[in-house]
Amino acid sequence: MGRLTLGNINPHVVEAKYAVRGELAVKSEVYRAKLRKGDKDLPFKEVISANIGNPQQLDQKPITFFRQVLSILENPKLLEHEDVLLSTLGYKTDVIARAKWLLSHVGSVGAYSASAGIPAIKESIAKFLEERDGFPADPSHIYLSGGASSGVNTLLHILCASPTSGILIPIPQYPLYTASLSVLNATSVPYYLDEASNWGTSLDTIKEAYNTAKDNGTDVRAIVIINPGNPTGASLSEAEIRSVLEFAAQEKLVVMADEVYQTNVFVGKFHSFRQVLLRLQQEDPAKFGDVELASLHSISKGMVGECGHRGGYFELLGFDKEVEEQIYKFVSITLCAPVIGQCLVELMVNPPRPGDPSHELYEREYGAIFRGLRERATALYEAFKEMEGVECGEPQGSMYLFPSIRLPAGALEAAARDGRSPDEFYCMRLLEATGVCLVPGSGFGQKEGTLHFRTTFLAPGTEWVGRIKKFHKEFMDEFR
Amino acid sequence: MGRLTLGNINPHVVEAKYAVRGELAVKSEVYRAKLRKGDKDLPFKEVISANIGNPQQLDQKPITFFRQVLSILENPKLLEHEDVLLSTLGYKTDVIARAKWLLSHVGSVGAYSASAGIPAIKESIAKFLEERDGFPADPSHIYLSGGASSGVNTLLHILCASPTSGILIPIPQYPLYTASLSVLNATSVPYYLDEASNWGTSLDTIKEAYNTAKDNGTDVRAIVIINPGNPTGASLSEAEIRSVLEFAAQEKLVVMADEVYQTNVFVGKFHSFRQVLLRLQQEDPAKFGDVELASLHSISKGMVGECGHRGGYFELLGFDKEVEEQIYKFVSITLCAPVIGQCLVELMVNPPRPGDPSHELYEREYGAIFRGLRERATALYEAFKEMEGVECGEPQGSMYLFPSIRLPAGALEAAARDGRSPDEFYCMRLLEATGVCLVPGSGFGQKEGTLHFRTTFLAPGTEWVGRIKKFHKEFMDEFR
Repeated sequence: MGRLTLGNINPHVVEAKYAVRGELAVKSEVYRAKLRKGDKDLPFKEVISANIGNPQQLDQKPITFFRQVLSILENPKLLEHEDVLLSTLGYKTDVIARAKWLLSHVGSVGAYSASAGIPAIKESIAKFLEERDGFPADPSHIYLSGGASSGVNTLLHILCASPTSGILIPIPQYPLYTASLSVLNATSVPYYLDEASNWGTSLDTIKEAYNTAKDNGTDVRAIVIINPGNPTGASLSEAEIRSVLEFAAQEKLVVMADEVYQTNVFVGKFHSFRQVLLRLQQEDPAKFGDVELASLHSISKGMVGECGHRGGYFELLGFDKEVEEQIYKFVSITLCAPVIGQCLVELMVNPPRPGDPSHELYEREYGAIFRGLRERATALYEAFKEMEGVECGEPQGSMYLFPSIRLPAGALEAAARDGRSPDEFYCMRLLEATGVCLVPGSGFGQKEGTLHFRTTFLAPGTEWVGRIKKFHKEFMDEFR
Repeated sequence: MGRLTLGNINPHVVEAKYAVRGELAVKSEVYRAKLRKGDKDLPFKEVISANIGNPQQLDQKPITFFRQVLSILENPKLLEHEDVLLSTLGYKTDVIARAKWLLSHVGSVGAYSASAGIPAIKESIAKFLEERDGFPADPSHIYLSGGASSGVNTLLHILCASPTSGILIPIPQYPLYTASLSVLNATSVPYYLDEASNWGTSLDTIKEAYNTAKDNGTDVRAIVIINPGNPTGASLSEAEIRSVLEFAAQEKLVVMADEVYQTNVFVGKFHSFRQVLLRLQQEDPAKFGDVELASLHSISKGMVGECGHRGGYFELLGFDKEVEEQIYKFVSITLCAPVIGQCLVELMVNPPRPGDPSHELYEREYGAIFRGLRERATALYEAFKEMEGVECGEPQGSMYLFPSIRLPAGALEAAARDGRSPDEFYCMRLLEATGVCLVPGSGFGQKEGTLHFRTTFLAPGTEWVGRIKKFHKEFMDEFR
C-alpha cells in the first residue's frame, strides 16, 4: 500500500469525535507552554483548564491517608523504620497496617495482578457495595479497570456485534460513549435529557428513541445512564431509575450505569442502579430477575480525584457465565489495570472508619473538598445568573455546570464565517481573550437550535469567573 | 434483543485467542488459592507461574532508586523532612532532586496529564533515544502509553481500515498481536521465524507470506517485528534489520518494532530499528526517507520489571501529520497513561549516572538482576538438554526459553481423546503434577507438526526445574 493518510487509515477512528481534549484543549496547552516560557504578549497570565474534570491539576489536594499508604506500597523499605514514620513523618498506625495488609495481598505493586484485579480488593469492593446498597455482592463479578473509561471500552466491545448494534446514549453525554461507538463502528441511539426538568430522564423520550431506532433496523442492546450526570450534574430520583429498569426489563436491554460521580451530589441523594434493581427483584423476581446491569465506578472523581492513577471497577449483575468468560479474556489481553490504581480503589471503598487514628483527618479533608466544590459551583452559578442570555440550573452535583447560552445573530454569522458552530466559536474567543478553556455544548450533544458550554467548578478563586463575565459582556456588545 | 449470549455478542472478541492467561493460567490461580487456604491434597506445595513475564511476582526486586522517587511522588509531604529521608531512611540527594524535578513538571501524580504524556518526560525519552542511537529525536512524535500493549492497541486501531487490512506477524509471536487483530476484525499475515537459525528472521519467508496474502486480496499494511523475540529470545543482527527495512521501503509497509526486551540480551547486541533506519536514510535518503517506523518500549521488562505500573511509550518516524492527529485523538479518548507509570518511564530512560549518589547501588542492583536472569536461563537450558525429546537453543535474551518437544504417539492419542492439542495436554499434565504453569507453543503459533512450550526463567532456585525434569521422565515413560 502507499503511505498512511487520513484517507486510508481506519475510517471509524477518523469519524470519532472527542471534544473534551480537542482543538480548544490543544490550543490551551500551547498557551500554557508560552506562559511558562515567559511570554508577555498574551492578554492573560494563566490558563484555566475548566474543560476537564481533573481535580488535582487545579486545587484539590490528595487525601493524606491514601497517599501515605501508597508511599509505603511504592517503597516497602519504609516499613523498616516504622518508628520514624510514626514519630516524625506523621503516619498513623492504621496507615502502616493498611499498607502491610495490601502488600500481603498484592505482593509488589510492580507485578501484574490477576487480569480481573486483585482478589482481596474485589472482596473489599463487594463489602462496600453491600454496605452502600444493603444487598450482598459477589466478588467474582467485579472487574478492576484502568478508570471507568477502560471499563466502558470493555463493555462496549462485548456488546457491539455489528454495525447495526445500537446503544442508547443520553444527550448531552460524556463523549467517551459516542467516540467509542464510532471506533467500534456501532450505532449510537441518542435520547435527549430534559433540560426543563433539570436534565432529568424522560421515559417517553427514551421509548421514542428506542422505537425509532428499532424501526430503522437498529438492534438496540443496551442503555447507558450517567448518574449523576456528566455534563449536566443531574442526580436521578429512585422513581426515574425504576422506570428505566422497567423499560430495560421489558425490552431486554443491558443497563450500563456510569456512576463515577456518586459522591458528588449536592441536591437530593444518590441512588445506585444496583440497589434499585435488587429491590425490584425482591418485589417482582419474575420480571426483574434476569436484568443485566453493569455498574461502573472510578477513583478519578469525587473527593478522591485520583484520575492520574487510572483506577476503577465495574460490577456485573445477571450476565451469562460464558459472556463473562469473554469479558475476562478481553481484559486479560491488556494484562491488568494499574496496580497502584487498584490499591487506590481499595482505599476509596474502605476508608478510615470512626475511631481509626486517621479518621479525623480523613473526614476533615473529605468534608473540606466537598464543601469547596459546592461553594465554587454556587459562585459560578451566581455569576451565570448575571450574564445576558445565559441560563443555568441550580448546581446539583458532579463537577460541572452546563448552562445554555443565547447568542445574537451577529455571533452566529461570525461563527459560520469562521467555519465553527456558534458555541465552539464562543469558547474559542473566550479562550483567546481570557485563557479560560471550556467545552462547547456541541461536544456533548445538545438539542438542535440550543447552545451550551460545560465548565468544571474545580478551579480556585473567583477571579477567573470575573474574566468570563467581562469577556461575555464584550462579546455580546460586539455582536449585538 | 434477548439476553447476551456467546452467540450474540461481538464475534470478533469471541474469536480472539490469548493463551498466556487462558485455561492453564486460570487453573494455576485456583491451585494457588487452594494452597493459600492450607490444602494438603495437591501433589505440590507452591505454584510456579512460569507462564507470564512478571518479574516482581517472582523474585525480581524493584530498583531502589526508582521506588524511593515514587514514594515521594505519592507523598510529597515527605519533602518536609528531607533531613530524615537522608539521615535515617536511606534516601540520597539525587532521589530528592529527581522527585522535585518530576513534581515541578508533573504536578500531582493524581492529575491527568496531557493525552500524549508529560512533555518533560517526552523530552527525556528523546534524549535517551539520541544517546542510544546517535541520532536526535523529536519529543512531539513520542506518545506515553499504559505499557507497550496499549501502544500496540493504538497503532493497530489506526492501521486496520477494513477486514482485508493485513499485518505481517512473526510466528511464534506474543499473542497480543493476533488477539488484537481478531478483535479489530483485520487479518493476521503470519510469517514463520527460522528455528534452525535460532529463530532468526528470513526475508524469503516474509516475502512469501506477503505475496501469498496479496494474491489473496489482503491489503498488507505493516510488519511487526519483536526484537529481542518473544517467545523466542532471538536478537536480530543489523543485517537482518536492514533487510526488513529494505523490504518495508520497497513495499511501503509501516514497520512496528516491539523492542520491549531491548536490555534483556545475553548474546550479541541490541540494534534498534530506529538506529538502523536513520543510518539507511543517511546512505540512501531517496529510498528510505519516507519509511514509517513505530518503535515501542516499556517499563515492564528488562531490569526495571515494573509491569504492574503499566508504563511505556512509542515513537513515530515518518508518519503523516494528519495521521498523527488521529493518533492523538485516539489516545485522548482514554485520557492519559497512568502518571506514575509515566514517571517510571522517566526513571528508566534517565537512571542515575556515574558520580550520582545513587549510581553505585543502582548499578549493583541492575547488574545482579541481569546476571541472575542469565544464570537461571542457563540452568534451565542445561536441564532441557538432559530431557528426552526436548531441544532448546542457547539462551539469547528476553525472559523466555521456547524449547521444542517431541512426544510419543501415545501422548498424541491421549491428547486427542482429551480434546486438546498435544502441547496443551502436556502443559496441563505438568501443571496438575507439579504446580508449574507454562504456555503451550500453540498459544504463540508454531509450524505444523512441531510442538513447543514457553517458560520464563524468572522463578528463583532450581527445585522447580527438577520438578519439570521428573514429570517429563514420568510422562514419557507413561506414553512411550
